[in-house]
Amino acid sequence: MSRPSFQRVAMIGIGLINGSLALAMREAGLAGEIVACARREETRARALELGLCDRATADPADAVRGADLVVLGTPPAALGEVARAMAPGLDPAAIVTDVGSVKTMVVREVRPHLPDPRLFVGGHPVAGTEHSGPDAAFGTLFQNRRCILTPVEDTDPAAVAKLVALWETVGAKVDTMTPEHHDRVLAITSHLPHLCAYTIVGTVADLEEQVQSEVFKYAAGGFTDFTRIAASDPTMWRDVFLNNQEAVLEMIGRFMEDLVALQRAIRWGQGDILFDLFTRTRAIRRSVIQAGQAYERKPQLKDPEGEPDGEGVTGQL
Amino acid sequence: MSRPSFQRVAMIGIGLINGSLALAMREAGLAGEIVACARREETRARALELGLCDRATADPADAVRGADLVVLGTPPAALGEVARAMAPGLDPAAIVTDVGSVKTMVVREVRPHLPDPRLFVGGHPVAGTEHSGPDAAFGTLFQNRRCILTPVEDTDPAAVAKLVALWETVGAKVDTMTPEHHDRVLAITSHLPHLCAYTIVGTVADLEEQVQSEVFKYAAGGFTDFTRIAASDPTMWRDVFLNNQEAVLEMIGRFMEDLVALQRAIRWGQGDILFDLFTRTRAIRRSVIQAGQAYERKPQLKDPEGEPDGEGVTGQL
Repeated sequence: MSRPSFQRVAMIGIGLINGSLALAMREAGLAGEIVACARREETRARALELGLCDRATADPADAVRGADLVVLGTPPAALGEVARAMAPGLDPAAIVTDVGSVKTMVVREVRPHLPDPRLFVGGHPVAGTEHSGPDAAFGTLFQNRRCILTPVEDTDPAAVAKLVALWETVGAKVDTMTPEHHDRVLAITSHLPHLCAYTIVGTVADLEEQVQSEVFKYAAGGFTDFTRIAASDPTMWRDVFLNNQEAVLEMIGRFMEDLVALQRAIRWGQGDILFDLFTRTRAIRRSVIQAGQAYERKPQLKDPEGEPDGEGVTGQL
Repeated sequence: MSRPSFQRVAMIGIGLINGSLALAMREAGLAGEIVACARREETRARALELGLCDRATADPADAVRGADLVVLGTPPAALGEVARAMAPGLDPAAIVTDVGSVKTMVVREVRPHLPDPRLFVGGHPVAGTEHSGPDAAFGTLFQNRRCILTPVEDTDPAAVAKLVALWETVGAKVDTMTPEHHDRVLAITSHLPHLCAYTIVGTVADLEEQVQSEVFKYAAGGFTDFTRIAASDPTMWRDVFLNNQEAVLEMIGRFMEDLVALQRAIRWGQGDILFDLFTRTRAIRRSVIQAGQAYERKPQLKDPEGEPDGEGVTGQL
């Protein structure tokens, strides 16, 4: 597939994801000009300073004027409103995509506002860090990450092909699926883990002060990973849960049933139930490693990123 | 504090923790001779090959004979039995400690079997990886990690002091607290996070096959961390939950209440409740970083250990 090339790209929102995409596109020579749209002046100034864009504006209709690619990178809840606001400036031939974590709702909210809804392709690069804002952006964010595109029945195949080529050029592995299927898979791989992390860290916040201060000291055993996850952007995650309500509630239901079963096994001392589950989950780790989403590692303690868990006794007597 | 020095150290169990402690003590010149005790011949042979010990035996009483330090590194559930088995060979002046993740039960089970119970000091180095067995051992495992000692009222202060010096020499930061307090802090920092991870990964195992295979592909968004945690040693973790039952059940109860409140907020679209919690938990991440248990990082995609989460839109429009 040949390299896509866009004369003018409008980045609506210029935080971690759109900022990183701007850098990556620039490095790959994919964009003639990049225009960023951000409501806050501070964000626009910073985006310009960091070289994430050539021009910045607060007006979505102004931002998209003359663009042949528009990338929506604002919180999902704001996307309908943003699409409506930019529509007057939009070239009817422009491809419009987004980079949000929920898809069914985005497709439903954005398409009606566009001159040609067939040119909207929902997108979700499964990449990120717990940091947000333009300063968090870096050009290699998408390398070896997955990106999911969610065309619907009447989406223009040429637009999909151009976006596939774009994401592949910045290093991502691209898959396509329906918006509904996307939301269900992400509910369990991402939304539920985040909710558990938020909940546990919140539970700690309610503990008496003495225990709490020690929790921070002894965080190495699993809790550190959870605090990192629970430090993710609050606005974005509120919107994820509100906008993927159905799939998330289904997964919470399944999770609670399973947790209650373990709670019961612990209360009644049913070690075999615990052992069987823990053995099954260890096998799943191997499947994830085989699928290329994780790497075997042996922490080197010189490495500040080595935050090992699973502490304790593993003797072989 | 001067360096502790032991003529002969008996490592009862020679997996990740005891193996790493053996290497670290050897490198620091803290041990004259190291004798390992393991039931399986394969483990003994491997420990000798890897230089984790000078001699290996299957008999606990034989292993501890002539030792001035005994480190119990077998699963907590086996410790009472091991203490009973080694007692006939034990020098009444030997210091006995352990490296397990639960403490109340260990103190209760081990002390009665010892000639001088005042020389038993419960210990828990909060360090580890998801790997187990002698091959997983490495000498820097404890550097900059916490180690908790849990002396009780009549524990010999000189024995505690020698163990503090030992752990500090191999790089750990040592705290002391009661066994009961230890178990409560660890229930929330370690045991509950592990239980959540095991549960979520188990929930995935029950999903229909098509969703499951995609879960592995899109694991980057939080789920990868959970699979790593849920790959921890099944035997050890079964014993942790069974032997820290009371504190774990209390924390599960609190967690479930909090999760149900979030479930309700999602169902009824109460975004302010979600946003408030997610903002509070972000602040806790900062407390954990300040307490030195985590490090700010910006993933470099060349780094196989960078497994970022919190994917999605964080635009600042």
